[in-house]
Amino acid sequence: MIIVMRSGATAQQVAAVVRRVESMGFRAHLSEGEERTIIGVIGDERPIDPGIFELMEGVERTVPILRPFKLASRDFHPQDSVFSINGVTIGGKKLCIMAGPCAVESRQQILEVAHAVKEAGAHVLRGGAFKPRTSPYSFQGLGLRGLELLAEAREETGLPVVTEVMAPEAVSMVARYADILQIGTRNMQNFALLQAVGQVNKPVLLKRGMMSTIEELLMAAEYILANGNSRVILCERGIRTFEKYTRNTLDINAIPAIKQLTHLPVIADPSQGTGKWDLVVPVSRACIAAGADGLIIEVHPNPEEALSDQAQQIRPEVFAKLMEDLRALAGPLGREL
Amino acid sequence: MIIVMRSGATAQQVAAVVRRVESMGFRAHLSEGEERTIIGVIGDERPIDPGIFELMEGVERTVPILRPFKLASRDFHPQDSVFSINGVTIGGKKLCIMAGPCAVESRQQILEVAHAVKEAGAHVLRGGAFKPRTSPYSFQGLGLRGLELLAEAREETGLPVVTEVMAPEAVSMVARYADILQIGTRNMQNFALLQAVGQVNKPVLLKRGMMSTIEELLMAAEYILANGNSRVILCERGIRTFEKYTRNTLDINAIPAIKQLTHLPVIADPSQGTGKWDLVVPVSRACIAAGADGLIIEVHPNPEEALSDQAQQIRPEVFAKLMEDLRALAGPLGREL
Amino acid sequence: MIIVMRSGATAQQVAAVVRRVESMGFRAHLSEGEERTIIGVIGDERPIDPGIFELMEGVERTVPILRPFKLASRDFHPQDSVFSINGVTIGGKKLCIMAGPCAVESRQQILEVAHAVKEAGAHVLRGGAFKPRTSPYSFQGLGLRGLELLAEAREETGLPVVTEVMAPEAVSMVARYADILQIGTRNMQNFALLQAVGQVNKPVLLKRGMMSTIEELLMAAEYILANGNSRVILCERGIRTFEKYTRNTLDINAIPAIKQLTHLPVIADPSQGTGKWDLVVPVSRACIAAGADGLIIEVHPNPEEALSDQAQQIRPEVFAKLMEDLRALAGPLGREL
Amino acid sequence: MIIVMRSGATAQQVAAVVRRVESMGFRAHLSEGEERTIIGVIGDERPIDPGIFELMEGVERTVPILRPFKLASRDFHPQDSVFSINGVTIGGKKLCIMAGPCAVESRQQILEVAHAVKEAGAHVLRGGAFKPRTSPYSFQGLGLRGLELLAEAREETGLPVVTEVMAPEAVSMVARYADILQIGTRNMQNFALLQAVGQVNKPVLLKRGMMSTIEELLMAAEYILANGNSRVILCERGIRTFEKYTRNTLDINAIPAIKQLTHLPVIADPSQGTGKWDLVVPVSRACIAAGADGLIIEVHPNPEEALSDQAQQIRPEVFAKLMEDLRALAGPLGREL
Repeated sequence: MIIVMRSGATAQQVAAVVRRVESMGFRAHLSEGEERTIIGVIGDERPIDPGIFELMEGVERTVPILRPFKLASRDFHPQDSVFSINGVTIGGKKLCIMAGPCAVESRQQILEVAHAVKEAGAHVLRGGAFKPRTSPYSFQGLGLRGLELLAEAREETGLPVVTEVMAPEAVSMVARYADILQIGTRNMQNFALLQAVGQVNKPVLLKRGMMSTIEELLMAAEYILANGNSRVILCERGIRTFEKYTRNTLDINAIPAIKQLTHLPVIADPSQGTGKWDLVVPVSRACIAAGADGLIIEVHPNPEEALSDQAQQIRPEVFAKLMEDLRALAGPLGREL
Repeated sequence: MIIVMRSGATAQQVAAVVRRVESMGFRAHLSEGEERTIIGVIGDERPIDPGIFELMEGVERTVPILRPFKLASRDFHPQDSVFSINGVTIGGKKLCIMAGPCAVESRQQILEVAHAVKEAGAHVLRGGAFKPRTSPYSFQGLGLRGLELLAEAREETGLPVVTEVMAPEAVSMVARYADILQIGTRNMQNFALLQAVGQVNKPVLLKRGMMSTIEELLMAAEYILANGNSRVILCERGIRTFEKYTRNTLDINAIPAIKQLTHLPVIADPSQGTGKWDLVVPVSRACIAAGADGLIIEVHPNPEEALSDQAQQIRPEVFAKLMEDLRALAGPLGREL
Repeated sequence: MIIVMRSGATAQQVAAVVRRVESMGFRAHLSEGEERTIIGVIGDERPIDPGIFELMEGVERTVPILRPFKLASRDFHPQDSVFSINGVTIGGKKLCIMAGPCAVESRQQILEVAHAVKEAGAHVLRGGAFKPRTSPYSFQGLGLRGLELLAEAREETGLPVVTEVMAPEAVSMVARYADILQIGTRNMQNFALLQAVGQVNKPVLLKRGMMSTIEELLMAAEYILANGNSRVILCERGIRTFEKYTRNTLDINAIPAIKQLTHLPVIADPSQGTGKWDLVVPVSRACIAAGADGLIIEVHPNPEEALSDQAQQIRPEVFAKLMEDLRALAGPLGREL
Repeated sequence: MIIVMRSGATAQQVAAVVRRVESMGFRAHLSEGEERTIIGVIGDERPIDPGIFELMEGVERTVPILRPFKLASRDFHPQDSVFSINGVTIGGKKLCIMAGPCAVESRQQILEVAHAVKEAGAHVLRGGAFKPRTSPYSFQGLGLRGLELLAEAREETGLPVVTEVMAPEAVSMVARYADILQIGTRNMQNFALLQAVGQVNKPVLLKRGMMSTIEELLMAAEYILANGNSRVILCERGIRTFEKYTRNTLDINAIPAIKQLTHLPVIADPSQGTGKWDLVVPVSRACIAAGADGLIIEVHPNPEEALSDQAQQIRPEVFAKLMEDLRALAGPLGREL
């Protein structure tokens, strides 16, 4: 950390900061510029709250030097992390495509979709049993019954299942049915939930908060890793911006950027990231071209009859065509599908 | 809801939409413009998912007419809601000032602040026992011990206590100690938590998500109201924008805007809303001038020694001076303090 | 346009709005819902300022139905526009790649880059002669001398030239040298400049404002089209968001979205859109995969010696490698390069 | 400037950076931490482009220490700047209220408003003769005729006049009529225009770009100051955010923040900053309570008949009431009106 003193800071003020730094067990390194004195703090600064110094007299501001995450960083773990989940690999050369409906609505619906996406080449089945909804009056998911239906679809198709868990006390129940636990965008900083999924032995699909920076996403992953669960898959799913034509703005830059910073696999969600079914196919191709390790796509046999997110679910035949597009792109991109 | 057909939509497409509207129990009202046909949906549209129509052939988009919240709206409840909380009134002419440290750190600290803010004229004591922190390595609060200390501070000063609850399973414990349950900005759309606090008989202080719209804030309030708890206090606490000089951008417009839309009391949090202690005083004055029913302010006896949010906590003597400022402004603004 | 009356609006208030609508030469179409009366305005609403109605008593708000642009819209011109610029085609099946330095710095530099990008397969040479800089103390470009050097590079390589024009009075001078006039992101709503380039017979490359909506971009294009210049190329170049790790957030969704709304060609600028040279290659691939008709890329023979935007310019050998990547992707995407 | 080396940077890479720093005439100051080496650049870093270092091998990133503006900074000029404009003082204890219509529409309209706002106590008359409009089909202002009418209104009332100038070649014409030249939000980074107004002897009202940071606003002011014009008034007028209920989000934090950073006077525009006439009064009060040196308010005798921005103009009687509110607040705030 660098502590920047105000122009005109007195020698006593500088000395007080240096004493403080040293009293915390760090070394202080002074550098007197023409307009400002700056003080370098030597040591692992991650546990220091910068505010401690920002309030001292004569201090203008502090500048962190180290990134605040450690277990999630490439400095700590230079090679890409690759996990195997019930026979499906994620994080290596092979792309991993997850697909299925926004919400599990009925036995027939989930089985129909599961077979369709399996046939088109998907590797993991998605489907929501517990749905976070903006309105208390909207369909909130089938709950436990939805989990049972997902398990049945796995039995029938062999596809591992990813589904969202919304509360710490539901983690053990959801973990009994699901192969991957999903943390939704609104819960990315639900720290009680992050701790809970950090303590189970199931991979976690962590969606970026629609309001969260890349660094905050990596700090949320750090919560899970620090609680002992090393299998975290990150997911770019669109951020909130001023643009109103699309529901979210998929942050395509984030895909290669996150991969520079971390060893964890990164997938993208073009269904949430656009909010419009007719943008899902081109943006899916774009995410893979940008280096994503996989995708999670909402597919519904009959989107206009869906109980949620109608506008962003694609039909099985559109999904099958997308898989063909991706197969054609994988080779030139050095990936496999 | 208005359904806008594409230019060139066929008569059959229009007829199909009309049939669909009617099959859902609504009346359809056709209006043929020069370039577009539009179809009005007559009835309480709130439960309709617009996606149902957006996917039909020939439909360009839909436009909601009614706001999606009901119990929270002024249409439903034209008069301002006023609550009494252990003798403290909120929502009427009298301003309600909540103050205290970001986090409860020790018995001495919380008692010292409690007495100081009480003496300066605060009405409610704030203090975090469970702290949501971006980093798993930061101080996470004293937990139950923090709640006990808050209760002791209430005993000594008579000030009711507001403190954050972060998980559904902690609601009953926190409710045993606190007079007001706070939902933090990261949990504004933690729907499991909203449902849980909706089912207890304690007022709830609901902070706006840092990247949530006013409408989403009111929908979050609707969750609590719909679960049976009518005592919700809304809090503007700054939103996330591109501006980096301040930690958040306090949305001053939101204060009078929210009061137009809802009957619920609205307070502001200039500590979080600015993130800089030296902006807290002018922005506090501004919030009251804009019509806020109160403030929640972080006060610490020794901010540079604080265990969290050092940069935005003010000293008791600054708080006392702020209270004087507010007292001078209250009269001209038609308020009391 | 739809005019939504407040709940409780009186019959007189409704009648007054209807009279107003009719007095402006439109037809009014009344629809009485259970909670609100709405009034449809029949006719070409584009010239109406909604504020006219929003201030009338009893009116809650207005909702536009038609998009405000006309000449730029696909409704008006369903087929893709394709232009030929000195033998280079833009807008059709063939991708158009523009490349060159951020700024023209010297004769040697621009000629070296021009030959390098030509050899790698670029179609158009870019280079700034007039540079918009945040600081008055930064290098502002070579001005007229820069234009002369660009013309010399065109002579040598046969590549048409695109360069930025920053002020209306400079349009005729820049048009004497350039093949395509670029409007920079900060000038997207410099209406005097849009009018000036609308009146010359040169294609215009219009960059999206970094905080402008897609609709505002299309309205800026409409200014140029309405002034008589039909050759407008739109460019997505990243928008400003809360994310700080990258300089801008390239809005990948905007590429297919803009192509749905307009017939004009759409290219992308991954150099500006990321602000980091090591993200340019993956994001370039993504833009093409999303359907962009071309790219504009900053290439410098020696980026760390550049006089501006060092961090986002790539070396000629990186550009050559990128062109190979794009050639491999073009076929599977149904494009040519 | 601080240059942060990557973890694992070699001694040669560090030495190369140090040589580069020294070759530019600066001193380098090395500090070896546990995980990173950092290099301090000693000297006035403002002219250095950080990209020069960011591209060198082994460099992770650079961190600026000095703010990039100089003439605009409080370091350079600690006391508040106070100007006198035709007898009206701005920047001192006395508040300065500017008011008038969005656009000059007719002789009768501007004279009527001018008298009304004068009577209510305004100090400066505002009115647009050249109007930046998103649509080419909207009313663009009366141009020269508008300037003449403003001059006539000044004759009649004695109020100095502020009006917008949109293009460099129009500066001398507008300066012949106006007392203060306004740079609109879309032109805050129209550098050709900033240079032009920097070279005339008229005060400039510089509006913050709706997409610009506080630092960029101060850099835009620096352009004007560096061109020789020291009379710059800054104006917070709302920024663009994700919130859709209001047209802009007035950044109330910016008012005291800007005043910390600069000596220039700061006013606020609650008409643009909210976009809704019924929010103008509370937000005006808030801006003054936050420390603004004045306001600029849109007032129209008959807003629903206005040719632009109908929704945000207030009637003269509302303005008169606002002036009363402000008079009551000025004393408690230590200001005069």
